[in-house]
Amino acid sequence: MKLPEFADIEQAHERIRSYVHHTPVLSSSTMNRILNCELHFKCENLQKVGAFKFRGACNAVFSLSDEEAAKGVCTHSSGNHAAALALAASIRGIPSYIVMPNNAPTIKKQAVEGYGGQITFCEPTLEARETTLARIAMETGAIEIHPYNNFNVICGQGTAVKELIEEKGLFDVIMCPIGGGGLLSGTSIATRALNPKALIIAAEPEGADDAYRSFHEKKLIPSINPKTIADGLLTSVGELNFRIIQRKTDEIVTVSERGIVRAMRMIWERMKIIVEPSSAVPLAAILENKLDVRGKKVGIILSGGNVDLEKLPFHEFV
Amino acid sequence: MKLPEFADIEQAHERIRSYVHHTPVLSSSTMNRILNCELHFKCENLQKVGAFKFRGACNAVFSLSDEEAAKGVCTHSSGNHAAALALAASIRGIPSYIVMPNNAPTIKKQAVEGYGGQITFCEPTLEARETTLARIAMETGAIEIHPYNNFNVICGQGTAVKELIEEKGLFDVIMCPIGGGGLLSGTSIATRALNPKALIIAAEPEGADDAYRSFHEKKLIPSINPKTIADGLLTSVGELNFRIIQRKTDEIVTVSERGIVRAMRMIWERMKIIVEPSSAVPLAAILENKLDVRGKKVGIILSGGNVDLEKLPFHEFV
Repeated sequence: MKLPEFADIEQAHERIRSYVHHTPVLSSSTMNRILNCELHFKCENLQKVGAFKFRGACNAVFSLSDEEAAKGVCTHSSGNHAAALALAASIRGIPSYIVMPNNAPTIKKQAVEGYGGQITFCEPTLEARETTLARIAMETGAIEIHPYNNFNVICGQGTAVKELIEEKGLFDVIMCPIGGGGLLSGTSIATRALNPKALIIAAEPEGADDAYRSFHEKKLIPSINPKTIADGLLTSVGELNFRIIQRKTDEIVTVSERGIVRAMRMIWERMKIIVEPSSAVPLAAILENKLDVRGKKVGIILSGGNVDLEKLPFHEFV
Repeated sequence: MKLPEFADIEQAHERIRSYVHHTPVLSSSTMNRILNCELHFKCENLQKVGAFKFRGACNAVFSLSDEEAAKGVCTHSSGNHAAALALAASIRGIPSYIVMPNNAPTIKKQAVEGYGGQITFCEPTLEARETTLARIAMETGAIEIHPYNNFNVICGQGTAVKELIEEKGLFDVIMCPIGGGGLLSGTSIATRALNPKALIIAAEPEGADDAYRSFHEKKLIPSINPKTIADGLLTSVGELNFRIIQRKTDEIVTVSERGIVRAMRMIWERMKIIVEPSSAVPLAAILENKLDVRGKKVGIILSGGNVDLEKLPFHEFV
């Protein structure tokens, strides 16, 4: 299995440039003063569909030949990838088939439908999701686009840090959260090429620490009964992603739930932007002193902003 | 009394350019599709201190001669202007004296103190605020910087729409909220000069409609017992501001409280940014069909993002 290289990310960037938002990079003087470092946040919460996932989905969809694309794309997801794939397919004018667990939040279903995705519901187990997806793929001829264990998805995700470094110059540290590893693997490839001296550090919730354990034990350990408020980071790391991460990433650290909520609140209050808990995980690592960033220039990818305003967590950890 | 001209706004922009954030302009394809128009939001909620007020305060502070500045600046305010003036003074290295009512929210006091402002508390009446400010000015020799009825403050506020038009080209409609009129007067001068054909429309809460009534009755009518969730828009329009607005603004419309909350929620959910209720007032006017923007390119200044996360209004108007 060929690993993506930086040239593939450059091609991905050309391919998706006209479809994705060139998201802003924001910073807060007050936060920098409090934390004694220079933080630059790449705001993928302001990306289309509210998450970096649109980059990868877009690259995957527009990498297909006309013949491949004709019958559409499919995936199983209850999260941002589902909405991202539906929108990317809709832009290309092809159908998208999304398998979702029947207990998925109404807000997620509405998002997928709003972008033109055709939903098939199934029981909320991985097995049901996979068999349903296999059936849908068979019936429709649609091509499966995995949310992260996919060459073109990884290349698309790598374009966020490419924009960050192109805009703000070289960094001492680049950080992002890790769930399945799509963002981290793409980020690691692009950073190694553009900013070879930067430390590449991923952050993960303690309650879903399969990437941390896999990285340190040097073998892929699946996520079993993960539990965290960072609902974008519950999945197990993908095989292709793990191979890249082992080669390119410097460190993975874990953070507490309290730290995630504290970091999320700091971003909302100080930066006036809405991020979902998963986005706050790298800042939580800084707040919890899991790495030393004093005096350093740090780039952080904020992964997404899809959070249910009815269920804000700020009271849970006071 | 000389009225500011566009050349004064250009000078203000040069003066403050290195101190203020060049804030991003964001848009949402989904909102544009729903509302059948092209909205561009100038995000002054992402400005320093979380509000456009920093532009005006900065221009006022840096317009002072060294001699004038030496003894510092003062104002009475419990809102964004207080924090903005404290930060601007702190950047120039001069003292700032802020008179605040003794019932001001803790979060506001902390913001002013955090930026180095020296607070004097007084009874929560306009008379107490004015007499206390007069005493402080006398004792310290500090120069008063009014939050909006001030030539240099108006010129500073006008730089936001200048950036918007320079970045995104000409608009059919330019909108902003109106409270004291600092933002609207500066916005109107800059828009008339850069984009003469644009309609300039301000939006105001029904419960604080002194600007609406003043504009239509062609005389300054003070705000008496205003009541609105848009706490940045409670003040009466300033005299200098009103003279400019009468000459340059095309229309003022009013919106309901329910409309403000609905618009605020739409901005949070769709754009993933935090805006305070005052910022949502122009979008509320569009949602409530107070003007016809179908097919039009509309620029909206989002005035600020300082909102107490403990007291979100989303349940009040369900």
